[in-house]
Amino acid sequence: MGMTFTAREIAERVAGLVEGDPDRRLAGIAPAGSAGPEHLTYVVNEKYARHLADNDAGAALVPTDLAVEANGTTLIRVENPELAFSKLIVLFVPNEDRRPGVHTTAVLEPGVVLGADVTIGPFVTIGRDAMIGERTEVGPGSVIGSGVIIGDDCNIGPSCTLLRGAVVRDRVRLHAGVRLAVDGFGYASGPDGPVKIPQVGRCIIGSDVEIGANSTVDRGSLGDTTVGSGTRIDNLVHIGHNCQIGSNCFIVAQVGIAGSSVVEDGVRLAGQVGLAGHLTVGAGAAVGAQSGVMTDIPAGEFWSGYPARPHRMWLRSTSMFYKLPELARRIGEFEKKSGKEGP
Amino acid sequence: MGMTFTAREIAERVAGLVEGDPDRRLAGIAPAGSAGPEHLTYVVNEKYARHLADNDAGAALVPTDLAVEANGTTLIRVENPELAFSKLIVLFVPNEDRRPGVHTTAVLEPGVVLGADVTIGPFVTIGRDAMIGERTEVGPGSVIGSGVIIGDDCNIGPSCTLLRGAVVRDRVRLHAGVRLAVDGFGYASGPDGPVKIPQVGRCIIGSDVEIGANSTVDRGSLGDTTVGSGTRIDNLVHIGHNCQIGSNCFIVAQVGIAGSSVVEDGVRLAGQVGLAGHLTVGAGAAVGAQSGVMTDIPAGEFWSGYPARPHRMWLRSTSMFYKLPELARRIGEFEKKSGKEGP
Amino acid sequence: MGMTFTAREIAERVAGLVEGDPDRRLAGIAPAGSAGPEHLTYVVNEKYARHLADNDAGAALVPTDLAVEANGTTLIRVENPELAFSKLIVLFVPNEDRRPGVHTTAVLEPGVVLGADVTIGPFVTIGRDAMIGERTEVGPGSVIGSGVIIGDDCNIGPSCTLLRGAVVRDRVRLHAGVRLAVDGFGYASGPDGPVKIPQVGRCIIGSDVEIGANSTVDRGSLGDTTVGSGTRIDNLVHIGHNCQIGSNCFIVAQVGIAGSSVVEDGVRLAGQVGLAGHLTVGAGAAVGAQSGVMTDIPAGEFWSGYPARPHRMWLRSTSMFYKLPELARRIGEFEKKSGKEGP
Repeated sequence: MGMTFTAREIAERVAGLVEGDPDRRLAGIAPAGSAGPEHLTYVVNEKYARHLADNDAGAALVPTDLAVEANGTTLIRVENPELAFSKLIVLFVPNEDRRPGVHTTAVLEPGVVLGADVTIGPFVTIGRDAMIGERTEVGPGSVIGSGVIIGDDCNIGPSCTLLRGAVVRDRVRLHAGVRLAVDGFGYASGPDGPVKIPQVGRCIIGSDVEIGANSTVDRGSLGDTTVGSGTRIDNLVHIGHNCQIGSNCFIVAQVGIAGSSVVEDGVRLAGQVGLAGHLTVGAGAAVGAQSGVMTDIPAGEFWSGYPARPHRMWLRSTSMFYKLPELARRIGEFEKKSGKEGP
Repeated sequence: MGMTFTAREIAERVAGLVEGDPDRRLAGIAPAGSAGPEHLTYVVNEKYARHLADNDAGAALVPTDLAVEANGTTLIRVENPELAFSKLIVLFVPNEDRRPGVHTTAVLEPGVVLGADVTIGPFVTIGRDAMIGERTEVGPGSVIGSGVIIGDDCNIGPSCTLLRGAVVRDRVRLHAGVRLAVDGFGYASGPDGPVKIPQVGRCIIGSDVEIGANSTVDRGSLGDTTVGSGTRIDNLVHIGHNCQIGSNCFIVAQVGIAGSSVVEDGVRLAGQVGLAGHLTVGAGAAVGAQSGVMTDIPAGEFWSGYPARPHRMWLRSTSMFYKLPELARRIGEFEKKSGKEGP
Repeated sequence: MGMTFTAREIAERVAGLVEGDPDRRLAGIAPAGSAGPEHLTYVVNEKYARHLADNDAGAALVPTDLAVEANGTTLIRVENPELAFSKLIVLFVPNEDRRPGVHTTAVLEPGVVLGADVTIGPFVTIGRDAMIGERTEVGPGSVIGSGVIIGDDCNIGPSCTLLRGAVVRDRVRLHAGVRLAVDGFGYASGPDGPVKIPQVGRCIIGSDVEIGANSTVDRGSLGDTTVGSGTRIDNLVHIGHNCQIGSNCFIVAQVGIAGSSVVEDGVRLAGQVGLAGHLTVGAGAAVGAQSGVMTDIPAGEFWSGYPARPHRMWLRSTSMFYKLPELARRIGEFEKKSGKEGP
């Protein structure tokens, strides 16, 4: 049984203005389409506001200037309902799972240093001389290699692997099954075929980074692979060895970045994008879903396609692509006509 | 040492008609290309039937009306040999691994409810108040979060992660490394950059669903992510938050579905297909391998391409694509000719 | 504190010729761009050689005939600096983690056979009658199924899953989260919809194979899935059931190979390539990144594109693709002109 809050209490926490009953009591949260009298919800535009007319949500965060047919719902007017709502969620859905301490089943090798109030789950293995920062949680079954360094207030999900060479700054969140500091795909040409180049560099993850489930980040071959602070990485993403990923990037699910590429600050790579190795995507650039990037992309540009080109160029060519049979017909007709009568 | 069966016993189990020696004794199964005298095999068409002439398989399930050169092989005629064979496999390859009980190393938090005859493997962690149905197996090293609900007769593979918010119906099979109820990729725009929206919805997996190794399904952000009953999902698939996947869909390896998309019943998505967010693929539609779907697809249609379009449209344009240099040459010639002589 | 070596000692190990101070003492390794006086580094061409002029690396492996401005760096001339360097890395970065023995937490079922000097990590589960070869390491949390066979000198990373049917030869390296012998995606058409075909074949991994993190290889449905010796597979790769992958192939990250396809010896598949099922890529062929292969590829050819075609054909068509708007304009002009004045 969670706590309840009045609409007024909610409004105070997000500096909102109440329209309707400020004493309305809320016990939970729900999407606008399914909210009932005990729920707080939110809407961002007319499309979703219509839900408020169709059901009997208890209260809703709504944009300052949006016309809403309230149907008894108490409105709480704020500038950015999504942002306000995201701050309120924790009131109704507290994280109850955290209980600091080291589970009795965890295996810690000699020299491990644990910060205050860490939470180490069952069946965790922590290698020699690894360091875990204050208040950091390590989920069940995760493996922290020798010498790995993890900062404060991190959340390492279940079944993660941080191998030797991994360095994780503060407030990093790794979801289940993330693999850090994996050997990259590096081979030298030998007389009898390829020879594995031992991978000995680091894999440095900046503060406030989030990495999605089952994603993999290789360690540097000799230098470092780095992911800048504030960068968000989705599920099943691959980042190759020696890549330099900037700060505050968004890297959506199933993106693959080949070795030694540079992704500068604030870049957005949509789902399933592939980047070839040894290239640079400039700061603030964006790449459309499934694009195949084979050349550098200048800062600030939006590219798409396979191979990727400036988005408008790709759009124009793609729209012509689906008119190719028509174009071919016109050429054929012209040839026929001119062959018969023509010049 | 497994059991042996006569061709007659085999035929009775699948309502087949024996041609040849009904007392032929079979001790195992093998593909048509490598079956020996002790093996039962099957063929579905002429191409594979030729193997029966080339080797000395003990018995073979063959289609009712297929002409077969038997070479001593006992034939068992059935309508659908593949289906019949799939039912017989269990006779020869029994699943010996299941031994109900809770392994002594498993960690169960308070309030866990276990159904009769569950099998909980070594190093499994089950969080507070989770419920596991009857005869369900949980493989070694899997992590079941607090409050998770798993139905009857499920098979949760090794090293899976079912986080808080996961609800799994009956007879669901999750292969190794599946991650359910992972946080989706959701951020609100804040004044100082993106702010993570806490993900608190559920991830509901219908009955008879199968999910392949290392696939990930996000939990809903506020509502639910759902996968309908009977849907088959292959390895390394990503399903984003708030997606609604219908019943009896086939989703092949490495498909990625961005958040809030709707895939209706009976849809088939081939390997590496990408779906953008917030779109709908209508019931019974199919999408060709590696296609990039950026718009809704009407029910029952077959689409392909990047961006995806109706398959025949894509086929025609693609065949012209590889004739583009020829088209360009024809245009150039025409221009030259007309420039010299022309109109 | 690692060991130190003189430039002369280094040169002797790789049959190199010293230019400069042979008594220069090296304590570590670093990339050319960041090497200091205590570091050994290497350069392969002019581009990287410039780093030697800009900093004060202790020693550098350089190609026999490359002109280098040394700036005090001791040069060690060898034919193939990358190969030589890869052999020297182990001097400076020894693998200290290996301590043979079976961790007390590991669970071994009856009948398990362990070779001499194996290393079995914490929380490993090994099923009935599995066999692990000499000097092989199994990382923390890995699950080895009943009857699985692993050869000598293998390195099985943390959190791997080798299910019943997996057979792994010698010197195989599996990175974290690899899943072997997973059920393939196989269904027979039944009267009430698809019926799962029990998957009972093997998954055979040849000697000297390397498989990247979170990659998955299905077991054969009835026969075997095989990966030939010396083949290198990167992260997040999917290999479907019954595939026959040859020897000495390179399969880069996020490649997906559908069931029953044949990839012959020495094939190179670049990142995110998709192969449809039941096709053959001939020996020594190569496929460009993100290509979608829907037909057989002859031995030795280089193909690209979606759908894949011979690389030069794709290159020419792709370059025309981005000129389509221009082509369409030329056709339009011609039509206009000829309509007005023309034939």
